[in-house]
Formats: sequence, C-alpha cells, structure tokens
Amino acid sequence: MTARLTLVLGGARSGKSAMAERLVTDLPGPWTYIATAQAFDAEMRQRIRQHQADRVPGWQTLEEPMDLAGALGSAAAAGPVLVDCLTLWLTNLMLAERDIPAERARLLALLPTLPAPVVLVGNEVGLGIVPENKLAREFRDHAGRLHQDIARIADRVLFMAAGLPLALKGEAP
Amino acid sequence: MTARLTLVLGGARSGKSAMAERLVTDLPGPWTYIATAQAFDAEMRQRIRQHQADRVPGWQTLEEPMDLAGALGSAAAAGPVLVDCLTLWLTNLMLAERDIPAERARLLALLPTLPAPVVLVGNEVGLGIVPENKLAREFRDHAGRLHQDIARIADRVLFMAAGLPLALKGEAP
Amino acid sequence: MTARLTLVLGGARSGKSAMAERLVTDLPGPWTYIATAQAFDAEMRQRIRQHQADRVPGWQTLEEPMDLAGALGSAAAAGPVLVDCLTLWLTNLMLAERDIPAERARLLALLPTLPAPVVLVGNEVGLGIVPENKLAREFRDHAGRLHQDIARIADRVLFMAAGLPLALKGEAP
Repeated sequence: MTARLTLVLGGARSGKSAMAERLVTDLPGPWTYIATAQAFDAEMRQRIRQHQADRVPGWQTLEEPMDLAGALGSAAAAGPVLVDCLTLWLTNLMLAERDIPAERARLLALLPTLPAPVVLVGNEVGLGIVPENKLAREFRDHAGRLHQDIARIADRVLFMAAGLPLALKGEAP
Repeated sequence: MTARLTLVLGGARSGKSAMAERLVTDLPGPWTYIATAQAFDAEMRQRIRQHQADRVPGWQTLEEPMDLAGALGSAAAAGPVLVDCLTLWLTNLMLAERDIPAERARLLALLPTLPAPVVLVGNEVGLGIVPENKLAREFRDHAGRLHQDIARIADRVLFMAAGLPLALKGEAP
Repeated sequence: MTARLTLVLGGARSGKSAMAERLVTDLPGPWTYIATAQAFDAEMRQRIRQHQADRVPGWQTLEEPMDLAGALGSAAAAGPVLVDCLTLWLTNLMLAERDIPAERARLLALLPTLPAPVVLVGNEVGLGIVPENKLAREFRDHAGRLHQDIARIADRVLFMAAGLPLALKGEAP
C-alpha cells in the first residue's frame, strides 16, 4: 500500500533527499519537487545546483520559500510531491518573522486532505550540545515540534543515517 | 511485565518527556516527578512552567537539582518515579564542581535497589560537531558515560525522534 | 557468517570503540588496531592513552594519520583490522589540504579487496544545529558522504547510542 504521507528525517548528508526522491519516483508521475531553499550566498547556490544535478529527469520544480501550504495544494493536484525541506521553510519563516504556530497549523490541517502522496524532508538538528545562540535554540524547538506534529499524522517516518533508513513508523522501504 | 528501570534518550524536542510521563502514568500511582532543572533565567523559568502545564494532574513534584540519589530513595518508597532529566542534573553537578564519578557511582548503586519502577530522561548531545568549548566536550563525555552505565543495568532503553520511540533495549511501548 | 566489512557509527561517548573492539576480538587474531589520531595537545594525548588503556591485550597498534589505505593493505594481510576512526582521518586530510575525493575513492576501491574482516569506526556529527564555521560544515559533508559510500558496500552498519547498537544494515551483534 502506498503511504499517503511520509516524513524523512536525518542529519546533514544522511541521504535524506536521495531517499525521499526514490520514494516519490517509485510512484507514477508527474512528480513535483517543492524547493524551499533560498540562495542567500554562493555556498547555498552551489548546494542547490548540486541537489538539482543529482536529481533524475522528469521532475517539475516549484521554488517556494514561504507559502508551503499554497504550493502543496496546487502541486498535489498533479501527482506525488516532495518537499525539501521543512527545515529551510522554518528558517525562512523565522527570518521573515512570520507566525510559526499559525503556519504550522495551516500545514497540518492541509496535509491529510491532499489528493496525492507527499514526502516531506526534515533535518534532525536537536542531537548536539545546546546552542549558545538563542535563535538557534528557538529554531530547534520549532523544528522538533513540527516534526512531532507531522509524525503523528504520517503513515511512515524514516530516520536516515549513512544513507540507510530506520523505520520509526510504518515500513522501511 | 513492568520494566523496573527505563532510560528515555533523545534530542531537543524529540518527545522524551511526554513519552516518559506516559510510561509512568500507565502504572498505578501515586507518581513522583523529580525535576532537576534550576531556573537561572527567564527562558529557563518559561521552559519549566511549560513542562508543568503540559503534565496531567496527579503528580507529586520534587525539585532536586543535586541530590538525585537522595530524592529517588524517598520518592520510590511511594510509587513510580520520573527523573527529568539526567542532563540538567549533570550540568548542575559540573557547575557546582562536584565529584561526578562519585555521584554517578552513588546513583548506579542505588538504582537496582529501588522498590518502584523508575523512568530516567536523558538528552542525547553527542551527535553534533565536536564543540570548541572544553567544558561542553567534558559535559558530552560525562553525559555519554552516564547514559552507557545506566543503559547497561536498564530493562528498557528508548531513543526518541519526532515523538516516536526506537527500542535500543527491551520492548518499544 | 562473519561480516567482511562493518561500519560502526555513533556520537561522542556512544560506545562505538568498545563495540568495534568487541566485534574484532570475537574473531581469531592477530588483531591490528589502526589509530588515526594525532596528539596535538594534552587533552588529545590523554584521550589516546585512555583508549589504549581500555583495550584488551593482544592488539598490534599502527598509528597512521593519513595513509589509511596503505596501512589497511598491510594490516589486513595479518588478520582482522579495526580503524578508529574515519572522522580523525578526514580531519587530518583536511588539515593537510589533501584531495579528499581522491583519498575517499582510493579507500573505497581497496575495502572490498581486503583478505580479512575490517571494522571501521565513524563519528556521526551531522545531527546538531548547522555549524557557523564553514570548515565545520565542509567537514560534516565529507564525513556524511564517506559514511554513505562505505555503508553502501558494508555487510553491517551499526548506529550506537548509550553503548547499545541499532542495526542499520545486517544483524545487530
């Protein structure tokens, strides 16, 4: 059975994006890739280009740093959707001083209603030493809470390490 | 079968405390909550108030930043006990320049003798980049060693991510 | 069946080295320990001495900070080998401004050809907040990519927490 909602968690370079792309491309297309990254500097532009080059052909790409619910609503009408990633979306919302609980509630209300399978990628950032920076601590709280809320309604939650999945919920692929 | 000693590990906002509370409230009460947090500033006071507000009614709360063994000894005479958390207890000991190996040994000797089930919460802090701060590195070492020593004698060790448990030892709840 | 290639991942003080040593000493000797650590300061010297003191007798120790492929090639002719750890090897290569992709390719080409079982230890460093330091971010990328590449060809990949193994690939010991 196809999972309607999958959350792929993991650290930096854990293979999250590759796993999420495989989960989506195992389904019939067309596939939409919602990229939440904003290129503020050369390093970020380079990371985005690298991610695009690594992707198999056949994806529609939608760049949407803020209005994730809006982008998901229109993309899921066409077919399976990959959101890469929740962490950058949260970062963008925090930098723009948006109302995070309101944006989170809007996303959580939308997700169960979408007509196509959705795979969300999130960075696990809470397993290091408590950051000295207050904004970083707030960010960890927002990210952890969002992951928990999504995990509660997801069919499948994977934790990636070294490119390999551990199933926290549902079946490992 | 009821686990006598459970260790719940996880990162920031991984759902550790909620899981630990559920494990204790699934048992017959009265339940004691040993809070090791010390409110040094407004942010910390806010986090403590939030944790208290999230808890179901029916808990006895014992605030004990240092003498964890003493608090456990008296609390476990009444019924199941939750310790939240080992990480702040270690922080408090380090700030007070206590003898960590001696305090650890005292706790480890006591745990197997307690008359009621105990659930201990610990923050996993060792999965980020090596901290530049020497005290933070020492703290990681103390925390990791304490978790290993407790995991060795525990019946159940859970690793939490996104609110979901992975069983490292014993059965997932 | 004996695993030919094992990767043991984990955070600081997660029990990685002890697990890796146990996996090697469960096999017939002689055993070689390839230490990639370089003692730049007193703290590091102390950590190295502690690791050596914790090890059971019967190990040959080879100190090799850079030429890991060379050391592996000669050590594996004698019997099972433990490499502790990949993370310090990468650090040494980066500090010496070596060509990381070339060194990685050399190691990956060698590993499947070795005549004896090999256990590699790696530090999981990508699960904290994104480091502000650019070198630290590059290091996380190199480490994550190396772990993924090795995990792909390994028979067994373990993720350690609190001294306990989660099997990401193959069987838990």
